Amino acid sequence: MKFDILTLFPEMFTVFESSIIKRAKDKNIVDIKVHDIRDFTTNKHRKVDDYPYGGGAGMVMQAQPIYDAIDHLKSIYGYKPYTIYLSPRGRVFKQEVAKELSTMNHILFLCGHYEGIDERVMDIVDDQMSIGDFVLTGGEIPTMVIIDSVSRLIDGVLSKNESYEDESFSDSLLEYPQYTRPEEFRGKRVPDVLLSGHHAKIDKWRREMSLKITYERRPDLLKSASLSKKDIEYIKAISKKSK
Amino acid sequence: MKFDILTLFPEMFTVFESSIIKRAKDKNIVDIKVHDIRDFTTNKHRKVDDYPYGGGAGMVMQAQPIYDAIDHLKSIYGYKPYTIYLSPRGRVFKQEVAKELSTMNHILFLCGHYEGIDERVMDIVDDQMSIGDFVLTGGEIPTMVIIDSVSRLIDGVLSKNESYEDESFSDSLLEYPQYTRPEEFRGKRVPDVLLSGHHAKIDKWRREMSLKITYERRPDLLKSASLSKKDIEYIKAISKKSK
Repeated sequence: MKFDILTLFPEMFTVFESSIIKRAKDKNIVDIKVHDIRDFTTNKHRKVDDYPYGGGAGMVMQAQPIYDAIDHLKSIYGYKPYTIYLSPRGRVFKQEVAKELSTMNHILFLCGHYEGIDERVMDIVDDQMSIGDFVLTGGEIPTMVIIDSVSRLIDGVLSKNESYEDESFSDSLLEYPQYTRPEEFRGKRVPDVLLSGHHAKIDKWRREMSLKITYERRPDLLKSASLSKKDIEYIKAISKKSK
Repeated sequence: MKFDILTLFPEMFTVFESSIIKRAKDKNIVDIKVHDIRDFTTNKHRKVDDYPYGGGAGMVMQAQPIYDAIDHLKSIYGYKPYTIYLSPRGRVFKQEVAKELSTMNHILFLCGHYEGIDERVMDIVDDQMSIGDFVLTGGEIPTMVIIDSVSRLIDGVLSKNESYEDESFSDSLLEYPQYTRPEEFRGKRVPDVLLSGHHAKIDKWRREMSLKITYERRPDLLKSASLSKKDIEYIKAISKKSK
C-alpha cells in the first residue's frame, strides 16, 4: 500500500523509522513518501501562507503550492491518489474507517497547519478526517495515527504472534487484563485462574473481565458489540451489584 | 510545564524538534524528557516483555522495568509526577481534558506496546487515556497528540497571532472556511462578503458558516455549544431547507 504525505514539516515523519511501520516498509508492504509543500512555491521566499480575507488572527495556507503539489503527484502516478485532508470538520476516524482505508491501494494525506488551508483546496480533496474533538497544531500527528492504525490491518504487517483478534475495539469490547512473569511482583499476585491451565475457565474469566471493563468504562461501546445470551446475563448481574 | 515520557521507542519523539513544540521548548515553557524503559531492565538481554499468563497471542510488557523507571523519576523529582497510561480503556481525550491537563505542572506518560502492559502496573498509574476508538501499535503517537494539544493551551506557547479563540471545538462549533490571496485562483473566487470590508457582515457570514458546517457534519457538537437566539433561528431555517 502506498501513502503519500504533503506537509510543511517533512522531518516529523522520521517517526516511521521505528517499530512496526519500519518493518512494514522494509518488507515493501507499505511505501511512505513525504513531500514538502514548500518545494512547490513559486515565490523566492518559499512563503506558503498569507493573511485571511475578512481579517482575523493567524495565517492561512495558500491554494497554489498545494494544487501544484497534487498536480505533480498526478503526473508521476498517472492518477490522483485518494486525498484525505486532516481537519476537525472531517468524519471521525474509528476502527471501522481504518478497516475501510486498509482496502485501498494508495492514499494521499494533506496536512494543514496554522489557521487552516484556503477553502478552494477542498475542491480537490476526496475526504476529510478528524481523529477526535481536540485542537492540534497541524495534520502531521493525526496522519501518523491513521497510517499506524491502517498499516497494522494490512496482510503481512503484523506477525501471527501479534495477531489483533483479541484487541480492544476489534469486536467493540475493551481488552481483558494481561499478566506476565513473575507470578508475584512487589506482593502483587497474578490471578489464580490464569495459572490454572484450565482453558475454558481462563476464556470465561477473560470474557467476563472484557465485559466488566467495557461496562464500567465505556458502556457506549456495548451497543455495537455482538453479545451472547451469557454475556448479557453477566452484564445484568454486575449492573445489579453496582446499584 | 514538564512532560516525562517512558517508552521503548525514544527515537520517535524527534517529532518534537519541529514547529510549535520546538519553539515552546526553546522558550523553556515546555520541558520534555524521554526515557527508554529498556534502560531499567535487570537482565543482560535488556528484555522487557514475556508471554502472557493464561496463553494467547502477543507479548506483555513486564512490570519490573516500569516500576523501576518510575521509582527512578520519583527519586529525581522528590515526588511521582501525575502518571497517564495511554490505553483504549482510558477516558476519551477531548478538548476539555486538554484544558484540564494544561493546568498541571508535571505529567508522566507511560507508553505501552505489544499486547499491553502487566496489569499490576495500573496500581501506580493515576489516569488512563484513549485518543479514540481505534487500535494503534503503541502509546507513542497518542502521547504526541496529547502533548501537542495540551502545550498549545499553555500561556506563551502560541503567539497572539496564533490565538485559538476561533478554532474548532473551543466553543463546540467547527470553524468557518478561510481564504487567502489571490482573490481568484483557477477560476475560483473568494466569497464577495470577505472582500467587502464590512465587519458586521463578515462576522455574521462566518458565524452562519460555522453553524451550517457544524449542523451538516457534526450535529452532535451543537448540544454543547452556547447558541444565541439568532443562532438557533438560523439552524432552524437551514434544517427546514434540507428536508
